[in-house]
Amino acid sequence: MKWGIKILPREVLLDTQGRAVQDYLNQNSQGVNQCRIGKYIVLDLKQTDVAESKKKAIEITEQTLINPLIETYSIESL
Amino acid sequence: MKWGIKILPREVLLDTQGRAVQDYLNQNSQGVNQCRIGKYIVLDLKQTDVAESKKKAIEITEQTLINPLIETYSIESL
Repeated sequence: MKWGIKILPREVLLDTQGRAVQDYLNQNSQGVNQCRIGKYIVLDLKQTDVAESKKKAIEITEQTLINPLIETYSIESL
Repeated sequence: MKWGIKILPREVLLDTQGRAVQDYLNQNSQGVNQCRIGKYIVLDLKQTDVAESKKKAIEITEQTLINPLIETYSIESL
């Protein structure tokens, strides 16, 4: 089963990379209110049971892929 | 209007970062077939017309955010 994990820096933090892209785009008059840059990870798990697989994907994400102090995530089924 | 842009390395390319995470997880018996790591970008555009806004988001993505030689993308409305 494939899972897509969207990871973004928390809203309260200054996302320097996103801000740099936002400023660059606005210098070129692209009308950007905000740009935030995070990670997108696709996990293809061997586990075939949907509920078990999702549980495993969440476990991997929370324990290995994200830093909960500075990042939030959401998971989607692919 | 907010758009979420999911950017992934092309399938034919070796994604070294993803492979490293995959190998690490499998050393810990997590049963991962594949792991691919890309970028997730949230663009908040001033343009309020949906069609125009989506056109602008695609234009920005193709011209600035991705390298079409090595990356593919998909856009979602948020």
